[in-house]
Amino acid sequence: MSLTPPSDEARAAARARLEALATPPGALGRLGELGVWLSACQGEVPPRALDRVRLVIFAGDHGVAAHGVSAFPPAITGAMVRTFVAQKAGVTALARAQGVHVRVLDLGVDEDFADLDETARAALTAYKVRRGSGAIHLQDALTEQETVQALAAGAAVARDEIAAGADLLLSGDMGIGNTTPAAALVAAALGLPASEVTGRGTGVDDAVLLHKVAVVDAALERARDRLDDPVATLTALSSADLAAATGYLLGAARSGVPVLLDGLMSVACALTADRIEPGAAAWFAAGHRSTEPAQSLALAKLGLEPLLDLGLRLGEGSGAVAAVPVVRSAAALLRDVALLSELAGAPA
Amino acid sequence: MSLTPPSDEARAAARARLEALATPPGALGRLGELGVWLSACQGEVPPRALDRVRLVIFAGDHGVAAHGVSAFPPAITGAMVRTFVAQKAGVTALARAQGVHVRVLDLGVDEDFADLDETARAALTAYKVRRGSGAIHLQDALTEQETVQALAAGAAVARDEIAAGADLLLSGDMGIGNTTPAAALVAAALGLPASEVTGRGTGVDDAVLLHKVAVVDAALERARDRLDDPVATLTALSSADLAAATGYLLGAARSGVPVLLDGLMSVACALTADRIEPGAAAWFAAGHRSTEPAQSLALAKLGLEPLLDLGLRLGEGSGAVAAVPVVRSAAALLRDVALLSELAGAPA
Repeated sequence: MSLTPPSDEARAAARARLEALATPPGALGRLGELGVWLSACQGEVPPRALDRVRLVIFAGDHGVAAHGVSAFPPAITGAMVRTFVAQKAGVTALARAQGVHVRVLDLGVDEDFADLDETARAALTAYKVRRGSGAIHLQDALTEQETVQALAAGAAVARDEIAAGADLLLSGDMGIGNTTPAAALVAAALGLPASEVTGRGTGVDDAVLLHKVAVVDAALERARDRLDDPVATLTALSSADLAAATGYLLGAARSGVPVLLDGLMSVACALTADRIEPGAAAWFAAGHRSTEPAQSLALAKLGLEPLLDLGLRLGEGSGAVAAVPVVRSAAALLRDVALLSELAGAPA
Repeated sequence: MSLTPPSDEARAAARARLEALATPPGALGRLGELGVWLSACQGEVPPRALDRVRLVIFAGDHGVAAHGVSAFPPAITGAMVRTFVAQKAGVTALARAQGVHVRVLDLGVDEDFADLDETARAALTAYKVRRGSGAIHLQDALTEQETVQALAAGAAVARDEIAAGADLLLSGDMGIGNTTPAAALVAAALGLPASEVTGRGTGVDDAVLLHKVAVVDAALERARDRLDDPVATLTALSSADLAAATGYLLGAARSGVPVLLDGLMSVACALTADRIEPGAAAWFAAGHRSTEPAQSLALAKLGLEPLLDLGLRLGEGSGAVAAVPVVRSAAALLRDVALLSELAGAPA
């Protein structure tokens, strides 16, 4: 299946409208460009307001977390999922403030959430692929069949969200250890060594960072014959949650719904999605600059520049949610500012 | 009158709360710091949500505009004021999208707005000081009495807005040529030559930029004996609108209401306010990085770092309005995220 790109016709009409607004040339800066992109994605000029912004958080555990790559123990993944469900996490606080709907899905958490009530548990685990994903320096993250299942799960989730009326989709993540497979995905896509893509995640020290580089390096070496194939790379180096997030981003692009990306996990999946379906990235904008080097490298490859750089390193989709009002501002400017031709007393 | 600073006690309690949240240390980045500042300003932990954010746009004409320093003719000032009143400008579009109340005031526009209905005209011109301010390279911008009047007008406007319930105040500007006096104010405060503070404003070419530097230089030379006195500097180098904006920012600081600054004009006035009442800047945060060099120089002196850098060069208060949701996000995080101690299943 090949992707339909955003509308060139709407893009050109939006640019013409931007240039006809009663503002000095270029004065809207990145908000002008962002409004044009939104118009192209919607195929409408001026763009519609973004009333239904929806975030999906893909949660899962990672085998590498048992091998000393994180500042936190793996049990935190499930604890944080419960915090999302209880609406007490950072991303849920931001989402409430910014009017963003949040859905959290367990794709591969290494527990069963037996303590949750049946309705909540069923919703959380509806697309679950497995308990924990493989330690990528030692074994494949997934079987080939699980990769297909996770990609399809993500695509189905995108369809769910679009059916619920989403006019902008966001992807978030939760999973102790997940910056390790995400860095490996970026290294695989860009042909870079582990040392260039590996960062401190939630805050590891120098010794752990060196060990993390060695883990990514071993994973890349183990999978070296498959790195030209993005789906095989997901099998070898990702996880159920990262493969599902990739399927979700592909699903959004295939359905022509724009996406606001978050930090390293979201962007590593976006890069992988664009490898699977070249051109997918035309549907993506970048919300927030991560402190992880792999995110900046992947964004540069995709030709995307983040809207915000606030030093957030919370994950969860928080950087994307924080950037939602910037996209809404861009839509409002292209929609609500008068054209120079409409103003009485305006200069010719 | 000396200023009361933001509450050290609330700041310490807010920092303790930030460190006790169920998020990794430092993961909230600048949003964590911003929430702590807001708590200190409010004297409350956690901070209240910002439901009543109010922008005042100070409009006025500048004698230098008749001397070739701008890409636009002076008549645009009045035309844009009418566009604000009609809610068809960039800043009004942004303000509607972000839930910010806008008030526009004519402090020194060089016309009488006789075409507006009486109610609108009375509201617009309630604090008017004069028609146009002096061309600062040739004469003083204001008389000493007009400076006192403009400062008092701004303070009265701040009181009005606070009486209306403002929990965050923003200042905006409109006036063709206004980057010239604003750059002069920054040069005067920092002891810098015209060449270091003068920028392209709304987009002048190289020849006009050189001329603009010469105008600022002549203004500084003309006023050189008064630059140590910030109020005398306003008389010599500012305008009715800039002096009033300075009074407004001082009024907010004296009343203990936090301010989100905009671009060059707002920040030049903030720097002047902090010269008049040292410590005023503790009540200010910076919304958006301007492309004008004087804004960055002034912010560095005040110890402020803008929240956004989106290439906006629209003026009007637009950069501050665009940054409002960032401050709301900061408040939401410090208020609504669980404490680690509250979470079941949390690590010790």
